[in-house]
Amino acid sequence: MSAARADNRTRLIQAAVKMAHRHGFEKSSLADIAQEAKVPLGNVYYYFKTKEAIGEAIVEQRLQEYEALRRAWDEASSPKERLCACVQAVLANKDILASGGCPVGTLCSELHKEDGALAKKASALFAEHLDWIEAQFKALGRGDGARGLAVHLLSALQGVSVLAHGFHDPDLVVIETGRLKEWIGGL
Amino acid sequence: MSAARADNRTRLIQAAVKMAHRHGFEKSSLADIAQEAKVPLGNVYYYFKTKEAIGEAIVEQRLQEYEALRRAWDEASSPKERLCACVQAVLANKDILASGGCPVGTLCSELHKEDGALAKKASALFAEHLDWIEAQFKALGRGDGARGLAVHLLSALQGVSVLAHGFHDPDLVVIETGRLKEWIGGL
Repeated sequence: MSAARADNRTRLIQAAVKMAHRHGFEKSSLADIAQEAKVPLGNVYYYFKTKEAIGEAIVEQRLQEYEALRRAWDEASSPKERLCACVQAVLANKDILASGGCPVGTLCSELHKEDGALAKKASALFAEHLDWIEAQFKALGRGDGARGLAVHLLSALQGVSVLAHGFHDPDLVVIETGRLKEWIGGL
Repeated sequence: MSAARADNRTRLIQAAVKMAHRHGFEKSSLADIAQEAKVPLGNVYYYFKTKEAIGEAIVEQRLQEYEALRRAWDEASSPKERLCACVQAVLANKDILASGGCPVGTLCSELHKEDGALAKKASALFAEHLDWIEAQFKALGRGDGARGLAVHLLSALQGVSVLAHGFHDPDLVVIETGRLKEWIGGL
């Protein structure tokens, strides 16, 4: 692919990621995405034949972002610090969460209303994150209870995103992530 | 309104509630809702002039359901029992949550992608529930921390609905509601 074409593709994906978070995936038409990316609509079909293909690229992009975050968290020196780093990442996103909800959570919720291959792909992101959190609790010596603790932590983080979005209030994220860090510290 | 007309209206609202939960509000057209309710599409406009009006009726219906639940919870004899009753209601819904997510949470998330009056109306449901939970924690003598505890409990309940939906796994609701009841008992 030429540099210009690779650049168009990147801009289309960035636009799709942004529009899906802001307006929902279903509501973002190929025409909207083309306009946001400043790529002529007629050219979009060269990169993405279907809306589904754009959805796959969005999930792929979110997965790459997640993996970059996880590599950073893995550099922390203890399981507790790693877990706190992942809570901190939610706090750092508080304004984005309050304006459009969790990009992964809201996309998953929307796609699972229809199910299908794309919904499964989006859930794989959740699954990876849940497994990673569980591994940290195991490293903390919480073998048997590690899965339940992971479900608890990810639920709290997802749930406060839903509330912060519903009330457009980033302070809810401040309150809940503070509580979660204290809880992790006290384990 | 005649009995036949009231009956049509009720059937349209029930159909809209069901379709919005199953497929999302945006994706449920007036034609889909009319078909599900077995009301001729031409007659729908007599009851609901716009999609927005259907949205309002869905929120109104959810609010009535919530108020009925809350009256039942209020009959429990202590704040801890009232809080556990509200957690129990989530557990009782585990299969619905795993198949379509939290009806209120997913509707709120979807509507807030666009904002507007309907999104605000849907959030009022969250606000009522959060206030009620906070009042229970206050009654437990947790004056200053009551808001934070309420945010924590509602976040956990909303978040586990997002996960159960993403994985289509009702057992996650069993695990998390069990933990929450223990936590409430130990406060």
